[in-house]
Amino acid sequence: MVVEVLRAGICGTDLHLLGGYAGFRGIPGHELVGQVEGRRVVAEINCSCKLCPQCRSGLGNHCPERKVLGIRGKNGAFAQKVAIPRENLHELPPGVSDQQAVFVEPLAAALRLFEQVETGGRSLVLGDGRLGLLVAQLLPDVTVLSRRPSKQALLEALGLPWVGSSDQLEPDSFDLVVECSGAPCLLDRALELVRPLGTVVLKSSWLEPSPLQASGLMVKEIRLQGSRCGPFRPAIEALATGQVTVDPLVDHTFPLREGLKAFQRAANPGVLKVLLVPD
Amino acid sequence: MVVEVLRAGICGTDLHLLGGYAGFRGIPGHELVGQVEGRRVVAEINCSCKLCPQCRSGLGNHCPERKVLGIRGKNGAFAQKVAIPRENLHELPPGVSDQQAVFVEPLAAALRLFEQVETGGRSLVLGDGRLGLLVAQLLPDVTVLSRRPSKQALLEALGLPWVGSSDQLEPDSFDLVVECSGAPCLLDRALELVRPLGTVVLKSSWLEPSPLQASGLMVKEIRLQGSRCGPFRPAIEALATGQVTVDPLVDHTFPLREGLKAFQRAANPGVLKVLLVPD
Repeated sequence: MVVEVLRAGICGTDLHLLGGYAGFRGIPGHELVGQVEGRRVVAEINCSCKLCPQCRSGLGNHCPERKVLGIRGKNGAFAQKVAIPRENLHELPPGVSDQQAVFVEPLAAALRLFEQVETGGRSLVLGDGRLGLLVAQLLPDVTVLSRRPSKQALLEALGLPWVGSSDQLEPDSFDLVVECSGAPCLLDRALELVRPLGTVVLKSSWLEPSPLQASGLMVKEIRLQGSRCGPFRPAIEALATGQVTVDPLVDHTFPLREGLKAFQRAANPGVLKVLLVPD
Repeated sequence: MVVEVLRAGICGTDLHLLGGYAGFRGIPGHELVGQVEGRRVVAEINCSCKLCPQCRSGLGNHCPERKVLGIRGKNGAFAQKVAIPRENLHELPPGVSDQQAVFVEPLAAALRLFEQVETGGRSLVLGDGRLGLLVAQLLPDVTVLSRRPSKQALLEALGLPWVGSSDQLEPDSFDLVVECSGAPCLLDRALELVRPLGTVVLKSSWLEPSPLQASGLMVKEIRLQGSRCGPFRPAIEALATGQVTVDPLVDHTFPLREGLKAFQRAANPGVLKVLLVPD
């Protein structure tokens, strides 16, 4: 269906696409709220073939033939209009604003880890960026590693305990560490901070290979789990009920014609969500 | 108890200890069969404190105060006699020879992965060494990556399908990849060969950091699982019933006084298990 874009968000992946990630050529943009046939909608980003073994076993997000909105083989939402399969669309309840709805896609990605690993224990989120602040709001007993003093007022407003340096944390003291910083160098630190038999989740994409101290992973029998796209319905619900707060995560909203300026702003370290509105 | 050593095996970890791994100073040796009070025994290697939260919850192998036979804070089995706590000892059935019994410890480590991950699908074992050949014999639908032509007769004798190069394998085609090669460069290849949502198990220890393509792990939502020591009873059983064949894995048996020569031999690429017998 042709969806009229109401608002779209710039994500770390969009910035990486500019650096060559995934070899994408086309219109980026995969976090959006739009309008179609008078209804406000958000859109799942994986467009799968429906025919392959993965699709038939309900794993369409891993369809080898899939196109991914604004990331792989399919133009995205930094445009007036975008074509999206009907089955990818979810209607929004009135209680979720356009600005909030842009967070459904990244919030679904944050919720993915609850489908993958145990989350009931003591958790550490590495990174105070766009994704880290969503993940942290979902975890029951969480600490955020926030190395930017500029973020501390926001962390406190969100009720999130934080430390400014990982030196303030005890080794082996977390059941779960979620890497949301995009800094490959923090991976080895994550392996130190997680307890034996604990789990480290990788949510961020980065381009360079990261040095992994495999012996630490082996001796502590750590599980390092990759995690990507997640369920939309619970994400919409978490916004509708106010379980997750997103409005303070918006840095600035630009008109689409100022898209380059918006990307420049989003690329600044520490900047949170930058939105685009079609002119 | 003081155990009279009958035979001990040299493991990849012993070779790494010489290179500085774990900072150990003392007598190495953690694969052994011995005799105590007229009974033949094998020994679990983790000597835990019994008091800490890990120990009290049955996870003594991860006790932070633990000593590890011949690896951490405790002299090992490359000696006439070795002191081992009574609760670490398992009596051997008569059907398991001394030579076979040396494989109980590494076979238990191989069995550990059955406690950790799904093993029912299509598996690839990276490496045709001491550990790889044990792991491969346990997996139901397995292929071994064996880059040494000298191993191929043995692989065929053991009934293990193999390929000589990972170029012969399709990407995304294995449910489980078990890294037993000790070659850090194979980690990224493992991430390519495992299917989306699949599992890569790290069994080998290595000293250098390995470059990890984290974006591949994230996009395919792969689980990278560290794996170390395992259960002794099933390992003894697998030898007693002949489920696993170990005699062809013995390269050479040296008297203890030729220990240095034995280590030199074990360090040669492609050499399988080297045993030591006290003089």
